[in-house]
Amino acid sequence: MKKVEDYIRNIPDFPEEGIIFRDVTSVLQDADGLKLAIDELVKKLEGVEFDVLAGAESRGFIFGMPMAYLLHKPFVLIRKAGKLPCETISKAYDLEYGTATIEMHKDAVKPGQKVVLVDDLIATGGTMKAAAELVEELGGTVEMILFLLELKGLNGRKVLEGYHVESVVAYEGK
Amino acid sequence: MKKVEDYIRNIPDFPEEGIIFRDVTSVLQDADGLKLAIDELVKKLEGVEFDVLAGAESRGFIFGMPMAYLLHKPFVLIRKAGKLPCETISKAYDLEYGTATIEMHKDAVKPGQKVVLVDDLIATGGTMKAAAELVEELGGTVEMILFLLELKGLNGRKVLEGYHVESVVAYEGK
Repeated sequence: MKKVEDYIRNIPDFPEEGIIFRDVTSVLQDADGLKLAIDELVKKLEGVEFDVLAGAESRGFIFGMPMAYLLHKPFVLIRKAGKLPCETISKAYDLEYGTATIEMHKDAVKPGQKVVLVDDLIATGGTMKAAAELVEELGGTVEMILFLLELKGLNGRKVLEGYHVESVVAYEGK
Repeated sequence: MKKVEDYIRNIPDFPEEGIIFRDVTSVLQDADGLKLAIDELVKKLEGVEFDVLAGAESRGFIFGMPMAYLLHKPFVLIRKAGKLPCETISKAYDLEYGTATIEMHKDAVKPGQKVVLVDDLIATGGTMKAAAELVEELGGTVEMILFLLELKGLNGRKVLEGYHVESVVAYEGK
């Protein structure tokens, strides 16, 4: 039986030497791979009580939306600055070079709601840390931060310390 | 019984006077709205034979991915230039101000495959026209271009003439 990692295309020395890029488009381009990835993510939420699923632009949308449909939950978009049409709160965070800002609608999470955050990949953890802080600023609590892939060598879990972090596939290294 | 349009937030005079912005985030932020939107899109494909579903960054991902899961089809990402890691083909198209370029992996569509394109909104039709041309360049055929919302006043169907265009909710005006 095939596993999620069997559908991932590994691109060595991309974007730089010594890095193996884990390409998820090859998972999506296979109907069985796509179904397996979503099913494995949903499995991680078995027994977890929560109110809202939220994902960050744009690969968090890809994996989060089928999960929201299957689990019958609202889906909240976490977007880059300036893309959401109503009143937002925003958070800046550091990238390798420079900073980025993400936003969430102010009415997206209500006080007391339990939120699960989902993304394709935990690398440095910066985006999801900022996303978790936005949820908390709106009075919600982060029940879990869930990733399809984890690159252990980048120590993203350290940045997300204090949160319940899960991943479907974990790679050693970067 | 509620309809998809009942979940849409209408923002008058945004981004400019005389335009009613149709916000789909309010559909997604309601579990019933989200399910209804996806189910109505899937209904449009009843009896349609096709091999691949493709959607454009990033709202095409939002609606396309749950459909791909439910219909057990591969999902192809149409992304802005520079975001796909493998060999791509690209197409530039005109925006109101300036141009934009979209890309698709070269191995995303095989010659002879039937492709359905999906997006949240047909406005001018420019993005989906460029996407359809990419599919055809790879030897695929476009079976349908499917939208959740249609703004009739922008004449996007004219730009997409010759293609089978469907939408779930059609608004008069812009």
